Amino acid sequence: MARRRKAPATRHIVSINDLSDNDIENVFKIAEAYLNEFPDPNFPYRIGRSTNIASDFILASLFYEPSTRTRLSFESAMLRLGGRVITSSDPNTSSAAKGETLADTVRVIGNYADVIVIRHNRDGAARLAAEYSTVPIINGGDGSHEHPTQTLCDIFTLKKRHNDLKGLNVAISGDLKGSRTIHSFVYALARFNANILLMPAKGMELPAHVDNRLRSEFRCLPVPRAKYETENASIDALYVTPDEPHQLSLMPNVDIAADVKINKIRKIHAMYVTRFQKERWADKAEDYPKINAKFLKGRRYAETSVLHPLPRVDELDAALDNDERAMYFEQAAYGVPIRMALLSLLLNLDKKDSLERFDGGFERPKYAIYDQANNIGIRCRNKNCIVHDEAEGQYARNKFFVVATARNDGSYLRCFYCETDIERFVVAHKKNKWYTKDTAALLSQNEHQLRELIIFADETAARDGGFHHFKRNTVNTRPGLRKALKSHS
Amino acid sequence: MARRRKAPATRHIVSINDLSDNDIENVFKIAEAYLNEFPDPNFPYRIGRSTNIASDFILASLFYEPSTRTRLSFESAMLRLGGRVITSSDPNTSSAAKGETLADTVRVIGNYADVIVIRHNRDGAARLAAEYSTVPIINGGDGSHEHPTQTLCDIFTLKKRHNDLKGLNVAISGDLKGSRTIHSFVYALARFNANILLMPAKGMELPAHVDNRLRSEFRCLPVPRAKYETENASIDALYVTPDEPHQLSLMPNVDIAADVKINKIRKIHAMYVTRFQKERWADKAEDYPKINAKFLKGRRYAETSVLHPLPRVDELDAALDNDERAMYFEQAAYGVPIRMALLSLLLNLDKKDSLERFDGGFERPKYAIYDQANNIGIRCRNKNCIVHDEAEGQYARNKFFVVATARNDGSYLRCFYCETDIERFVVAHKKNKWYTKDTAALLSQNEHQLRELIIFADETAARDGGFHHFKRNTVNTRPGLRKALKSHS
Amino acid sequence: MARRRKAPATRHIVSINDLSDNDIENVFKIAEAYLNEFPDPNFPYRIGRSTNIASDFILASLFYEPSTRTRLSFESAMLRLGGRVITSSDPNTSSAAKGETLADTVRVIGNYADVIVIRHNRDGAARLAAEYSTVPIINGGDGSHEHPTQTLCDIFTLKKRHNDLKGLNVAISGDLKGSRTIHSFVYALARFNANILLMPAKGMELPAHVDNRLRSEFRCLPVPRAKYETENASIDALYVTPDEPHQLSLMPNVDIAADVKINKIRKIHAMYVTRFQKERWADKAEDYPKINAKFLKGRRYAETSVLHPLPRVDELDAALDNDERAMYFEQAAYGVPIRMALLSLLLNLDKKDSLERFDGGFERPKYAIYDQANNIGIRCRNKNCIVHDEAEGQYARNKFFVVATARNDGSYLRCFYCETDIERFVVAHKKNKWYTKDTAALLSQNEHQLRELIIFADETAARDGGFHHFKRNTVNTRPGLRKALKSHS
Repeated sequence: MARRRKAPATRHIVSINDLSDNDIENVFKIAEAYLNEFPDPNFPYRIGRSTNIASDFILASLFYEPSTRTRLSFESAMLRLGGRVITSSDPNTSSAAKGETLADTVRVIGNYADVIVIRHNRDGAARLAAEYSTVPIINGGDGSHEHPTQTLCDIFTLKKRHNDLKGLNVAISGDLKGSRTIHSFVYALARFNANILLMPAKGMELPAHVDNRLRSEFRCLPVPRAKYETENASIDALYVTPDEPHQLSLMPNVDIAADVKINKIRKIHAMYVTRFQKERWADKAEDYPKINAKFLKGRRYAETSVLHPLPRVDELDAALDNDERAMYFEQAAYGVPIRMALLSLLLNLDKKDSLERFDGGFERPKYAIYDQANNIGIRCRNKNCIVHDEAEGQYARNKFFVVATARNDGSYLRCFYCETDIERFVVAHKKNKWYTKDTAALLSQNEHQLRELIIFADETAARDGGFHHFKRNTVNTRPGLRKALKSHS
Repeated sequence: MARRRKAPATRHIVSINDLSDNDIENVFKIAEAYLNEFPDPNFPYRIGRSTNIASDFILASLFYEPSTRTRLSFESAMLRLGGRVITSSDPNTSSAAKGETLADTVRVIGNYADVIVIRHNRDGAARLAAEYSTVPIINGGDGSHEHPTQTLCDIFTLKKRHNDLKGLNVAISGDLKGSRTIHSFVYALARFNANILLMPAKGMELPAHVDNRLRSEFRCLPVPRAKYETENASIDALYVTPDEPHQLSLMPNVDIAADVKINKIRKIHAMYVTRFQKERWADKAEDYPKINAKFLKGRRYAETSVLHPLPRVDELDAALDNDERAMYFEQAAYGVPIRMALLSLLLNLDKKDSLERFDGGFERPKYAIYDQANNIGIRCRNKNCIVHDEAEGQYARNKFFVVATARNDGSYLRCFYCETDIERFVVAHKKNKWYTKDTAALLSQNEHQLRELIIFADETAARDGGFHHFKRNTVNTRPGLRKALKSHS
Repeated sequence: MARRRKAPATRHIVSINDLSDNDIENVFKIAEAYLNEFPDPNFPYRIGRSTNIASDFILASLFYEPSTRTRLSFESAMLRLGGRVITSSDPNTSSAAKGETLADTVRVIGNYADVIVIRHNRDGAARLAAEYSTVPIINGGDGSHEHPTQTLCDIFTLKKRHNDLKGLNVAISGDLKGSRTIHSFVYALARFNANILLMPAKGMELPAHVDNRLRSEFRCLPVPRAKYETENASIDALYVTPDEPHQLSLMPNVDIAADVKINKIRKIHAMYVTRFQKERWADKAEDYPKINAKFLKGRRYAETSVLHPLPRVDELDAALDNDERAMYFEQAAYGVPIRMALLSLLLNLDKKDSLERFDGGFERPKYAIYDQANNIGIRCRNKNCIVHDEAEGQYARNKFFVVATARNDGSYLRCFYCETDIERFVVAHKKNKWYTKDTAALLSQNEHQLRELIIFADETAARDGGFHHFKRNTVNTRPGLRKALKSHS
């Protein structure tokens, strides 16, 4: 009856930011080692044979959305390592058809397999699965949120081609809104100091919360449109990463960095094209940018490597396939060595020096977490977030990171699952029954103190919950508010 | 051209009653051995690594209905043994979509695999498959009939927790009608001398033929409602198993056993919850019993182990998951070692003493079988029985066990495939062209003699078939009838 | 950056005619060796255990249409060899659902697997896939075109039963039009000198282009109906293969061969039954021939071996299953050793003498190829050809073999993908802007010369393309036309 014994902490890869820079370098080092150890004689980017080091282990593929390349490349990677695979690739023929939740499924499948890769249509689904799983969860794509292993392939491809990402000008074209691969990708580009040029289709711009994180968490400096507009009309936004990030972050309003760096943009090192998701944007096919030889004909694009996560529809011209600049099939091929490396690390397959263990994840800011059972108070405003699924939502909570604004004069909430932000809300005090619209009320509150509070979507909800507005004479002064909070915790 | 050579008799696991008590103990012993030999360091109920002893063998998963845990746990079990797996999990992408029958499919797949696990929406489908298969068929669930490997996990879980099943009070809640897991489970409980407390949802009581078998074949004694009604309103029926079964079965009308045993029911050792099958009972969601902390709060439930075959919908509260009494995830985990053990035995993987061979099955009563090509005479009355599938039915027959009534004053028919009973029918004599409504006409007839008879659903059918009523002066006296039967065989 | 390095030529098995006679004999020899090396003790036609020689390799199953036996027997074969398998068996849960093309899919999957078996609903799909794949493509059935590995099983079964195909009388019943297995099968029968007796269902006769190839390419001699009509009304056509093919082909109009050989038809050595494809011929169920004991009761059928590619619906009576003549389950069983042998050869698993390498394919006539980007000129007239799929078609071309008529007085076009023929078309000269309806204009043109021409469907299309009719005085004389062609190339 050791069933209640707490399992050791398990490493999950839900976001690219669950991997530290050092983790990512380790994945690349091992992937490179596998390419050298199991080469294909004709294709240097391809794994040519199999080993047996994972013969003790089973990978479970749980795909709630269509997939070929992510699922099959994970399965190929596991098999190349000598591991075994169990697959549930159709929600209509699995227990999901009977209404089983992710939380239950991963707790059951964790008994059948040693690692689980999961794809789901809801943002944040993989994070919810990770909360319940006793074996590592790898996010194979969750809604419009993230697709971290695709990003590992993308970054690896860029490194193989351009050696270093620092200062690389990477243009990204198409659907920047719904494409989960892009969200993981831009964080990684920022972390490795590439410059990011956005070329969204109309109405498919990068989501506000991703833009916000690029600026605040990853120290990206947006370059004013006037600086580059004349050069290329299709570039909608440009982020540069400072050489001395800490220094520059102290003066976020100067655009000196942009002045210094804009010269480099004469050359686009890489063009990343994203699929037109016809299932999402049925009526916008015409406006979607098409990348073809004509588009890439200027000197700026003479040595541009063209990437695409595939599958493509017609946003990327088939006539480019034999072009020297086309990297997308090579990029797809790297899916195998990269995923072999990731599985090796998660399963701790090799104890040699060359295969170091993860070192603890990306050091992202340690935000306090507000955590409330989910029938009370504010809910995530992203309607596709896993918390809004009727069945799955029972196992999620109203759980948010509390993030200070840039000027530290207020706070916003970031959903623990889907990582979208909420900027306006009302903070209420459980015991004292008052509430305030001042989001600064959450600042400097530790998790113990946060448990004294309930956050509501707006004043009406707070009043309906039996709370009254914080009294005038204190709410007008921050010290008064802080004192009020402190007195009750 | 040895193709016509008769294959050696093959062992199939269609019903829990295809396994003798000794077989079941063997499965448990081997499962325990695997748990010890391949332990997971953190979870004692989990298999932690793989072996290679089944590397010669292939398991085929043929699933005509949605499944995650049964299919994946079988596949995981086979892979943990070092075996290999081929899977057909979606009838829409298999040859079933082209109209292929089970009888053909298993004869073909038997050439590709060494053992087949099958799930099907029709009651009795696995038995039909077993009639044609040259490799072992394991029933992974057939309609509302049985799910024997789930029962092995359930019983193993109870044994691990409570050491012995004898005298254990096991309550079963929810859908006792449509749930195949329950039908296999109650037979096993009865065989291992547990007491069975039924708590069905309204309209989902145990089917009459299962109740009938519990009483007649497994010697269960139903306790009159008056004895326990005051204690717990939700208990609908209670079966106790006699300590001295043979003695008690001689006096089925006395409820002395109930008087003796009812005292024990103050404590419920286990509560088995079944899923609300919304696909079946769309309109009955409200009446379905919900098992939660409130339900389990009395002293009677203080140490109750809570089981559920999963998946659950909302009949079992997620808030119980961290309760000491919740056993359902452990129960799911045992799916792997139990199925490893079963596969080991069926494939004869280990010749050591510790892995004994099956010893010939449960000694169930040897009923005579009435067997008639299926376009003549009575047909199974269960509309979901495999014999009523237009295509599959060609390969089935009108085949029934002939079972004597408790008083031996008549007989009833039990469908060979789905095991439901028919109590009223008409017996006709092929040569003499008479028929009788007296079901005692089938008693003491061996299979050779039964071939002289045709059973019809009713008198109309018999007359339409050209038969006339047995003449009065003999039908009124049983010796006359028997003599009449004998004179022609 | 060796990505552009050209891969070595890869062997694909799209048509039975991609295998030389010697290749086929090699497959059979290796299949026989596997049956002997890994026997099942009870079933001589069944592989009884597994080896490990393919442990380095991965097979990908890409099935865009329902399948059980082809997919599972390929997977079983790969697993029996010790290889590993990745599977995409449902287009609704693969990237095909997102609109990915075959050309892209095989280029990606080629990085994950070492060999690909593909099934598709479009004729010619496997050929298109093979044009793009860097790993071997095996056609697991493409539309109504071919199913070469089924034919290998069929021919192997006939050889095991009758030792030699030469002079064997093989009747084929049912759907000869839509059944891809038949098209591969008749080519093989002709190549191995069997006599072919066609018994089509009404309206499901052998397609004209298959009949045409049987006569022209495989030297079959059709026997006039009068010769056999009185003997068996259901035989619709009969092809005999000459003992001295080269001699006879010089005098195609004499039916001396038929006179000589017709005597042998008194005995049918094999009856090949094909499935009634209800999805295709919903309204023709009644006319479809049913093969049963009654049909096979004459002396002519006394020793007929009955074959069926399975699955069957009701065109083949289940009552025959225990008949000595029924070979279809044995035939299905051979799917494993045959596919093991084919995979061994394609993966070059065994370097021993007994497992020789392919020797370069069937020596089919070296037709010149007319190849034109697909928005110009004539298109394949088979509406189910892969070139007519909107997405896939982008990667195909208007590509045809140019075949001379029997009298060498004209030519016809055979689609490179689906191999259907076009007899009427218009040939235009790019530079000179004339066109002619005389199909002899394509004769004796090499591929370089063919690039000077555009073929149009008809005169209207040619005129719309800006071409004018070739001037009278030369078009009437062939030497004039040839001269005209020559003068511009």
